[in-house]
Amino acid sequence: MSSASSPAHADPDGPARPLGEAGSRFLAEIGEQPAALLRLAHQGAAFEQVAAEIVERRATTIRMVGHGSSDNAASFGVYAFGLLPGWTALRDSISLTVYYGAELDMTGSTVLALSQSGRTPDVVEYVERARKSGAFTIAITNDSGSALAIAADAVLPLEAGPERAIAATKTYSNQIAALGLLAAHTAGLGARFTEELRAAAEQMAGLIPAVQEQITNVAVSFAFAGRMFVVGRGTEYATAREIALKLLETCRVAAEPLTATDLAHGPVAALDALFPVWAIASDDETLPAVLEATARAHEAGATIIASGSAADAVLGAAYSLPVPDPPTPLLSPLLSVVPGQLFAWALARTKGLDPDEPRGLSKVTLAR
Amino acid sequence: MSSASSPAHADPDGPARPLGEAGSRFLAEIGEQPAALLRLAHQGAAFEQVAAEIVERRATTIRMVGHGSSDNAASFGVYAFGLLPGWTALRDSISLTVYYGAELDMTGSTVLALSQSGRTPDVVEYVERARKSGAFTIAITNDSGSALAIAADAVLPLEAGPERAIAATKTYSNQIAALGLLAAHTAGLGARFTEELRAAAEQMAGLIPAVQEQITNVAVSFAFAGRMFVVGRGTEYATAREIALKLLETCRVAAEPLTATDLAHGPVAALDALFPVWAIASDDETLPAVLEATARAHEAGATIIASGSAADAVLGAAYSLPVPDPPTPLLSPLLSVVPGQLFAWALARTKGLDPDEPRGLSKVTLAR
Repeated sequence: MSSASSPAHADPDGPARPLGEAGSRFLAEIGEQPAALLRLAHQGAAFEQVAAEIVERRATTIRMVGHGSSDNAASFGVYAFGLLPGWTALRDSISLTVYYGAELDMTGSTVLALSQSGRTPDVVEYVERARKSGAFTIAITNDSGSALAIAADAVLPLEAGPERAIAATKTYSNQIAALGLLAAHTAGLGARFTEELRAAAEQMAGLIPAVQEQITNVAVSFAFAGRMFVVGRGTEYATAREIALKLLETCRVAAEPLTATDLAHGPVAALDALFPVWAIASDDETLPAVLEATARAHEAGATIIASGSAADAVLGAAYSLPVPDPPTPLLSPLLSVVPGQLFAWALARTKGLDPDEPRGLSKVTLAR
Repeated sequence: MSSASSPAHADPDGPARPLGEAGSRFLAEIGEQPAALLRLAHQGAAFEQVAAEIVERRATTIRMVGHGSSDNAASFGVYAFGLLPGWTALRDSISLTVYYGAELDMTGSTVLALSQSGRTPDVVEYVERARKSGAFTIAITNDSGSALAIAADAVLPLEAGPERAIAATKTYSNQIAALGLLAAHTAGLGARFTEELRAAAEQMAGLIPAVQEQITNVAVSFAFAGRMFVVGRGTEYATAREIALKLLETCRVAAEPLTATDLAHGPVAALDALFPVWAIASDDETLPAVLEATARAHEAGATIIASGSAADAVLGAAYSLPVPDPPTPLLSPLLSVVPGQLFAWALARTKGLDPDEPRGLSKVTLAR
């Protein structure tokens, strides 16, 4: 692990703290994820009650809003609600309602507003307007006393606990779990999903130290990478987006998330040996599309890092970071995100950056 | 313009054709856009008829599907349908239906399937399944005899004409216009919108040569840029996505599209003087958010290229590429995309690449 404490290159605006502490909060919070998931699994009654109200109101068009990691988690919600109750869930446009003042009829809609702090201004304003337009509005937040919680009809606790590193980890994984839990309860599958969630949390608790042990040796090879694609499809598109965001935030890598299919529709032309591709290959119905995309990336000369439960099926991968098979395919993103989080931690340290305090970011983003 | 014929660096897999011809098809098709828009404007009767059928069927949830540029155009459709008839339009998940086999009830939905060739396999399959699930399905394609056209209930002609450059330009702008035209007809505003579309086409015809004259001098400064952010919001998020895709496809620049607000939620941490930001600043309700984002990017030391009708309002921009005020704010993306298309053309040539034939791409993408 010596490379973690001997940075490949120094950063002029780099860490104010001793390098030994760089990323300690980020790493600690990655490690807290299994416990946070188990806390959420205890909140079954709250989720069951809100789910019953959604069903009773027939508010079955699910509109999700949030920025950054919250919006990444919403990508997962499309599949959770599409596959469990069979409802249409969408990442709704905030600007359409908040900036342009479009007046959509939102009766029959449930709004799920995702915000760690509950203070993101345009998310709060969206909820106020959606509620007036007839939507059933639910805040999913760590702070049940926040402006967002007050604006919404109902609040679901995120139970991630205080998050001190600026790049979200346990907030994101609990958002994934919360969306899955709510979707499962609307489909009458809450009890089984809760058990599966507990089992996934146990798997995650074993996975984190195992990946941590090998990740610095992988990260050191990418010390000078300036750009990456992160490829996933289906439920793992959320994971691709979240890993790309961690790399942007903590490592200053221009990491762009793409679906496996979209890679072939243009961006593959940008690839060469200096442009690595992180591929999330999970053992579900989207695997053939991911394998086809990684084969094209490999052909273009890109270095490939494969992760996910089917990482070993990716031919030509320079690095493989497999994760266990999840208790149910839908929970696969909880495990798949872990190698990416730890890679971001290790790569930032290799670059001499402090992933706890990325330059120019603060924990609560009040930007419009 | 001498820099266009003296590349800053040669590309090992570079042009097979003489460099003088590199990008000639791409440039010609950029120039054909106004005529293509005017052809589409003649198709009012077809759009009016299909719009009437959507209204009669009350199929007012608009599900758009497509890949690459088609999916970028769909980002615009969210606003066209949200602002004109006041309906919810979404970029639907293809994988949810096609790979996972989710069975959503699609009665009350209209599907708009966007494909230049009409041959994209998973888009065709999505339409077949959506039709069985009760959706009213419409193919918007250049080829009215294609598999997609056959699979759908109705076909709307795109009228872009044969597109020979691999990177789409006139197909994209006609998709924007087609989505706007259909949305306008559903709201009973077809005649006015058609006039506005014609006026925008005239403006575009004047804009293209004016931008072309100055763009090579701008592009030469970015000959060694490996990554960029392209920032837009609201209706211009489609433009940001489309410009980023052109840069990826033709210039091998890792260009990532971001909403102005999302830039502040993480990616701003990656910026420095070597990481340029292209900002689309249009004079509409989202302008304050874009100006706030560009101010943050400027503060982080990024070189800023400002385009759009309010380009001159972006403080600290190194380059400004303003476009005229559109006849209606909704049509602003037709003008805003032009500087980005021409920048991609000029930058590819500056880099010694042939934008007509990006490595590893073909016109019809059959990848799943």
